[in-house]
Amino acid sequence: MKILILGGDGYLGWPTAMYLSRRDHDVTIVDGMNKRLWEAQASVRPLTHTPTMEERRIAWMKHGKPLMTYTCDIADNDRKLQEIISMVKPEAVIHYAEQPSAPFSMMSRAAAIETQRNNVIGTLNLMFALRHSAPECHIIKLGTMGEYGTPNIDIEEGWLDVEHNERTARVLYPKSPGSLYHLSKVHDSHNLEFGCRVWGLRVTDLNQGVVYGTGTDEIWMNPGKLFTSFHYDAIFGTVLNRFAVQAAFDIPLTVYGSGGQTRGFLDIRDTLQCVELALLNPAVHGEFRVFNQFTEVFTINDLARRVANVTDCTVAHVANPRVEEEEHYYNPVHTALPALGLDPHPLTDDTIERMVNYVHGNRGGVNLSSIDPTIQWRQE
Amino acid sequence: MKILILGGDGYLGWPTAMYLSRRDHDVTIVDGMNKRLWEAQASVRPLTHTPTMEERRIAWMKHGKPLMTYTCDIADNDRKLQEIISMVKPEAVIHYAEQPSAPFSMMSRAAAIETQRNNVIGTLNLMFALRHSAPECHIIKLGTMGEYGTPNIDIEEGWLDVEHNERTARVLYPKSPGSLYHLSKVHDSHNLEFGCRVWGLRVTDLNQGVVYGTGTDEIWMNPGKLFTSFHYDAIFGTVLNRFAVQAAFDIPLTVYGSGGQTRGFLDIRDTLQCVELALLNPAVHGEFRVFNQFTEVFTINDLARRVANVTDCTVAHVANPRVEEEEHYYNPVHTALPALGLDPHPLTDDTIERMVNYVHGNRGGVNLSSIDPTIQWRQE
Repeated sequence: MKILILGGDGYLGWPTAMYLSRRDHDVTIVDGMNKRLWEAQASVRPLTHTPTMEERRIAWMKHGKPLMTYTCDIADNDRKLQEIISMVKPEAVIHYAEQPSAPFSMMSRAAAIETQRNNVIGTLNLMFALRHSAPECHIIKLGTMGEYGTPNIDIEEGWLDVEHNERTARVLYPKSPGSLYHLSKVHDSHNLEFGCRVWGLRVTDLNQGVVYGTGTDEIWMNPGKLFTSFHYDAIFGTVLNRFAVQAAFDIPLTVYGSGGQTRGFLDIRDTLQCVELALLNPAVHGEFRVFNQFTEVFTINDLARRVANVTDCTVAHVANPRVEEEEHYYNPVHTALPALGLDPHPLTDDTIERMVNYVHGNRGGVNLSSIDPTIQWRQE
Repeated sequence: MKILILGGDGYLGWPTAMYLSRRDHDVTIVDGMNKRLWEAQASVRPLTHTPTMEERRIAWMKHGKPLMTYTCDIADNDRKLQEIISMVKPEAVIHYAEQPSAPFSMMSRAAAIETQRNNVIGTLNLMFALRHSAPECHIIKLGTMGEYGTPNIDIEEGWLDVEHNERTARVLYPKSPGSLYHLSKVHDSHNLEFGCRVWGLRVTDLNQGVVYGTGTDEIWMNPGKLFTSFHYDAIFGTVLNRFAVQAAFDIPLTVYGSGGQTRGFLDIRDTLQCVELALLNPAVHGEFRVFNQFTEVFTINDLARRVANVTDCTVAHVANPRVEEEEHYYNPVHTALPALGLDPHPLTDDTIERMVNYVHGNRGGVNLSSIDPTIQWRQE
C-alpha cells in the first residue's frame, strides 16, 4: 500500500515507518522538524541524541524497503504538502504531525497559540490537499483519550446514542478535554467529521491512551541507530517514562496529587498494531470512525506501585500542577480494535525492568532537573 | 459599566456600541478592519458605502457618550489587545470580532484557514489577555445556532443532561455544524468552556439565530450617518436581506433547495436587547453559560411566503449550494433570555416593508450579480 506518514520523524512516527516498510508497504515520511524546535523552546531533550531524518533513512536501508523522506511543515507549507500528495497518490495517510504535549500547550500564550495553530491548520491543510488530489485516501489520525476528559458516564468510541425527551439521536461523544493541547485534538475531530459528512472523506480517529516503551521489533534490529526518542521530562515525557528514570536513579517516583487519576495505557508495539489494523480495515467513503486505542486501564498509583515493586523505589506525592479530577469514574469502551484482531502486550514486570535498564545504560544523558513540573494549569 | 466591544465596526458591533453608549456605559471599540478586507477578497460590498470608524465616532458625538476607538487585529496583535485591556480594565467584553460568513469559509483553502485562524486565535488571545489583566471581566461571546446543526432531539441551551447505562452526566451539547465557519465557533466554545473550568473565566456564549433588519433607535437618530452595513450578497448576506433586495427589484425570491430548512431568527433590535440582558446579568466566576438567542423559528419557505405576500413577488427554488438537511426536526429551547426579560420584536409585514423600501431607496447600490450562490459545499 502507498502510505504517507506525517510526523514520521517523531516518537511514534519513526517506529511506524519502519514497521510498515518491513511489511512491504511503500512508505513516504513527511516531517517539518517542529518537534525538535519545540523541545529547544521548552529547554528539554530526549534521553539520547536523536539522529537526523536522513541518518535514519540511510540506517534503515539495509533492513527494509527504502523510505522516501520530505521535510515539510504541513501547517505552514500547504503547497508542498499538496505537491507531495499529488505525486505520491497515497492510499492512506497516517497523521502524527502535531504538537503532542499538554504542558507545552499550557506554558505560555505563544505556546498555546502555536499548539492550536499547528495542529488545527495542519489537519485542515491535509483535508484540503486530499479533497483535491486523493479524495479516496484513508486518513488515520492520532487523537487522544484525553479528548473525553473523565465524564461520569461510560466513554463510547467517538459516538453516543442519546435519548432525550423521548427522541433519539446519534451524536459525537461530548468532550471535556484537560488542556489546550487536548482541545486542539477535539477541534481536529470536529473538522474531520465535517470533512467526512460533507466531502466524503474517510477518517479513522484513533483516540490513543498513554504510550510507554521504546522497543519494537524493528528497533531491536539495530538499537544503536534505529531507536526512537525517549522523553521523561515534565513537558514531553509521560508518566511511566518518568518513573523509569526515577527508578534508575533510585529517587522517589513522583505522583501528581492523590494519584487516583485513571487513564488508558498501551505498549508502543500495540500502537503499531492498532495503526496497521486501521490501515488494513479502512473507513468507508464518508465515514468518520473513532477507535479508543489502549489496552489496559491504570490509576497513577497502580503504575507507581508496579514500578516500586519491581525496583524497590519509594513513592512521593507532589502538588498536582494540572486541573483534573483525582478520584473519578472511568469506564471507556475499547472493543473496536480487539474486534479487528488486536493482540495486546500487557504491562509486565519485565517491560518495566527493561525500561529501567535502558535508562540505566544511558544515565549520562539524564537531566534530573527537567523532571519536576514547572508549568501550572491554574493562574498563580 | 466599562465595556470593550471587539468587532465594534461591524454590522452588529456598531449598533451595539451606540446602544450601550446611549445607556451611559463607557464604550471602547476595538476593530481590525478585517471585515472590509474580506469583503474585497470575496468581491462583494454592502448596499451603501460604509463610513470609516473615525467618521462614525465623530458622527455619534452629538448623540451619546463619546466612544473610544482602537484599530487592532486581535488575532494578530495580542500585545496591543493586552495593552488596551490593561488600560481600559473592562468589566465586560462583547466579542463580535470574527469572520462571520459560512460561504466565505467554504470559498477556498485560504479562506477556510483564515476563518479558523482569525476566530480561534483571536478568542484565545482574548482569553489570555483577560486571564492576565482582567480575570473577573465578563466575556459575552457571539456564537451561532448553526453550531448545533439540526439534530433529531431538542436543542438545549449549551448543556445537555445525559443518562447512559444507568449513570448521568451534564455535558456540553454535542455539535454538528454545517460549515468551516460554524466549526470555528464550536472550537471557540470548547476553548472558552475550558477557560471557565480551569482559569475561572466568566463567559456567556450567545448562540444567535439569523439576524435581520437595519433599523435601531440609535440609527434612526441620524440614518444617513449612523446606519450599519446591509449585506444581501451570497457570501455575507442573510436570507431575509436577499429577499428584500429581490422584492425591491421584483425578481423571484430564491430559495435554496426545497426550503424546508428551519432556523431561529431575530430582529437586530433584539440582538441589542439580548446583549444588554447578558451584560446586566453576568455569568459568575468560572461559569460557562450558553443562551440560545433568537425569537422565532421559520422555515425558509415560511419567510419567502411572508415576503411574497407583502410584495407580490414570486418564489423560485434553486439548487442548494450547501450540504444540509432540507426537511428535519427542529426544536431549540430558548427560555433563558426571555426569563431575564427579553421583550421580542416579532417579524411583521411592516418590518418587511421597511426593509424593501430601504433597499428601494438605495437601489443604485445593488449589484444583482452578487446574489446567486457560486460557492459549492460539495466538491464538483
